[in-house]
Amino acid sequence: MRQHHTTLHVTTHGRSLVEITRSIADWLHGTGIEAGVLTIFIRHTSASLLIQENADPDVQADLERFFARLVPDGDPLYEHRSEGPDDMPAHVRSALGQVHLAVPVLQGRMALGAWQGVYVHEHRRHGQVRQVVVQVMGE
Amino acid sequence: MRQHHTTLHVTTHGRSLVEITRSIADWLHGTGIEAGVLTIFIRHTSASLLIQENADPDVQADLERFFARLVPDGDPLYEHRSEGPDDMPAHVRSALGQVHLAVPVLQGRMALGAWQGVYVHEHRRHGQVRQVVVQVMGE
Amino acid sequence: MRQHHTTLHVTTHGRSLVEITRSIADWLHGTGIEAGVLTIFIRHTSASLLIQENADPDVQADLERFFARLVPDGDPLYEHRSEGPDDMPAHVRSALGQVHLAVPVLQGRMALGAWQGVYVHEHRRHGQVRQVVVQVMGE
Repeated sequence: MRQHHTTLHVTTHGRSLVEITRSIADWLHGTGIEAGVLTIFIRHTSASLLIQENADPDVQADLERFFARLVPDGDPLYEHRSEGPDDMPAHVRSALGQVHLAVPVLQGRMALGAWQGVYVHEHRRHGQVRQVVVQVMGE
Repeated sequence: MRQHHTTLHVTTHGRSLVEITRSIADWLHGTGIEAGVLTIFIRHTSASLLIQENADPDVQADLERFFARLVPDGDPLYEHRSEGPDDMPAHVRSALGQVHLAVPVLQGRMALGAWQGVYVHEHRRHGQVRQVVVQVMGE
Repeated sequence: MRQHHTTLHVTTHGRSLVEITRSIADWLHGTGIEAGVLTIFIRHTSASLLIQENADPDVQADLERFFARLVPDGDPLYEHRSEGPDDMPAHVRSALGQVHLAVPVLQGRMALGAWQGVYVHEHRRHGQVRQVVVQVMGE
């Protein structure tokens, strides 16, 4: 059993999903690990990780519509606004999402379903560079 | 350290929870792993995984009531409706849930609490067959 | 590759976040594991785990405000009220949160971002003692 890790620096473009499936798959291929578990971890509290449908772009736009209604910017409910009207909503959205993902590796590939893609979900209005740690353990 | 994996094919019956605790426990017992980590991964974007109370069936019905109010079918908010009024709501419910679970294995068993059960949470109105990858690493 | 595990008993004080970053970091240091994956699992269905900002305490108060509005106590929607008006809301809040976390270990430390802390998120109104299993695998 052996392990490898890397850190991806993912540039986001405001509130939206950035797909990282291919970056992770290419890195995984390079490790030569055939079977094991891949762990993905985002080092932030205002962006999260999501596995969602990668076929119809409307799904991503609809997800954003849902979260914009559930967790609106500028909500007077919050005290924490030091970085603007999207500051606390970004923390809430993150708390509703995932800070990490674990994906089994089978036959050298992530065991994703046919329609599953791995995304960084940016919750701030402005683009950021997000650090994502990827670790694989297996053989 | 060694690892084992399997894929469960779980038949769901429309929007509800299907318990898979026993199936996983039986499989784990067969691997002979005494200590390690078990990873459970669902290969879909309109169903998710959930660890919840397995005692009072009202809890499951109440969870469904909550999600039906928060993410109603046929919501005019969404563009993506290619598979019907429950299509996009199923993706949203999945995004609020878990695509994977990790459970420590101690003394040959999942370290679940007394009232915890592992469930597939079906978010579509009609029954499906869902693929769940189960992987354990340990010794 | 080797593994270690422990169980933390975390005393909560009603509905709020209890930080456990330091307890886990100290235990991890004692294991001598330099690289691997740490798994954290809470053995309850009315409390959950959360990685969130550890700098401004307003963030925690605002998170509570959000959940109190989204999942109010005493909601007539629910049938399951055997333990009071916060019983079913605690299960719903847990279902929206995380029962487990996985954090990569690099250079002997959890690969947390600068502002990330690990918390037990208590969803019941009264304090409890919560069992949290912590497991690390690596070398």
